[in-house]
Amino acid sequence: MPASQESDDVAGHVSGDPADFQDPAYREAVVDLLGAISYGEISAFERLAEDAKMAPTIRDKVALASMAAAELGHVGRLHDRLTELGADPFEAMAGFIEPIEKFHRHTAPSDWYEGLVKAYVGDGMAADFYREIAAYLDAATRDLVIASLDDSGQSEFVVERIRNAIAAQPALGGRLALWGRRLMGEALTQAQRVAAERDALSALLAGGVDRPGLDLAAIGRMFTRITERHEERMAELGLAS
Amino acid sequence: MPASQESDDVAGHVSGDPADFQDPAYREAVVDLLGAISYGEISAFERLAEDAKMAPTIRDKVALASMAAAELGHVGRLHDRLTELGADPFEAMAGFIEPIEKFHRHTAPSDWYEGLVKAYVGDGMAADFYREIAAYLDAATRDLVIASLDDSGQSEFVVERIRNAIAAQPALGGRLALWGRRLMGEALTQAQRVAAERDALSALLAGGVDRPGLDLAAIGRMFTRITERHEERMAELGLAS
Repeated sequence: MPASQESDDVAGHVSGDPADFQDPAYREAVVDLLGAISYGEISAFERLAEDAKMAPTIRDKVALASMAAAELGHVGRLHDRLTELGADPFEAMAGFIEPIEKFHRHTAPSDWYEGLVKAYVGDGMAADFYREIAAYLDAATRDLVIASLDDSGQSEFVVERIRNAIAAQPALGGRLALWGRRLMGEALTQAQRVAAERDALSALLAGGVDRPGLDLAAIGRMFTRITERHEERMAELGLAS
Repeated sequence: MPASQESDDVAGHVSGDPADFQDPAYREAVVDLLGAISYGEISAFERLAEDAKMAPTIRDKVALASMAAAELGHVGRLHDRLTELGADPFEAMAGFIEPIEKFHRHTAPSDWYEGLVKAYVGDGMAADFYREIAAYLDAATRDLVIASLDDSGQSEFVVERIRNAIAAQPALGGRLALWGRRLMGEALTQAQRVAAERDALSALLAGGVDRPGLDLAAIGRMFTRITERHEERMAELGLAS
């Protein structure tokens, strides 16, 4: 779809559907969410570009660098939308810098394969989480969030590389399986921290006057779905989860 | 213009205009050129992503990272075209890795501002050089080369940053002016080395049976034009050249 047509659609939703945004708490939650995703993508760009240096071949380097570029490619539209909502994109991101950087510091890959698994599994987890939240948003924001998570299938090369590497050296499988668990644990730790600190985002999940929310049981089911998808991704890579 | 229409145009030129490619020397020169540009963009991605770490603000980081992503974004189409021409894109790049990496090793920026000037001036010089060569190519290749040099105006933010920085600390202007001369000198050194080693590219400039070439005076004028454009860019940044 041509970019101009797509942004017309989004703009159409916004002007046709402003009711949600009259609730300041809702607007704040959306600003938080778009800020979190934006900084997540900027940070993912940096880490993937850094990890690309460990690539054994130029072909692999280009593949990982392309994933990095794709992440950054979404930031412009997220920032445009934040500006439309009257927010400063850089202020909107500020609260998420520390938890996201902490996640990356605690999960710095020690070699090329750990970097590949992190790119695939970490990106997938984040996308699942944002997609779950997007279900509670107005249509325009939901479309934008979902479009910003599209990696255009670029991470598929990871599956082939990891499966081949494990076939060649089976001991790698055990190490990478542990690594995948660590990524999941660290992501949950940081997500929990964000939830505790960002009232607007938590309130969004709890619902509003005219908006359905999630009770504790529903939040439990949401995390079950995210965990299941994580396990499926690990299985795709040939790793025990 | 939608991507699909553009690639149809390119494909149309190729099938309608294969005469040039029946000359193996011409094909080899085009493969060389597209290989050089491809590796140049991959390498520019790496350096800009690295230099973005020195950014004083997230806003600046995103601006430089976006230039990095734009460079990498051109590689896919260049590689597709190389494949269409029956070449392996990674083999086509192989001969250019060393001179391009050497250029970057010899011009590693020592701070954020040197990085910005390099992004603006280095990228501009490379683009001018490839644009000059493109004038001697078949229409399809020329269009592809020119499209791959488009930075979508992303480097414009460099002008503002550098001008503001020099206004705040005038001594910086002298240092960055020297730095710009060093970039130009190093680029000429490596370009000369490539010209000496890649017979097909040199022969392209010299012309073929049915193709006009450049005599020494014309090559001299080409370098004069490239130097003049370099001086214009330095002046845009507020730097003596």
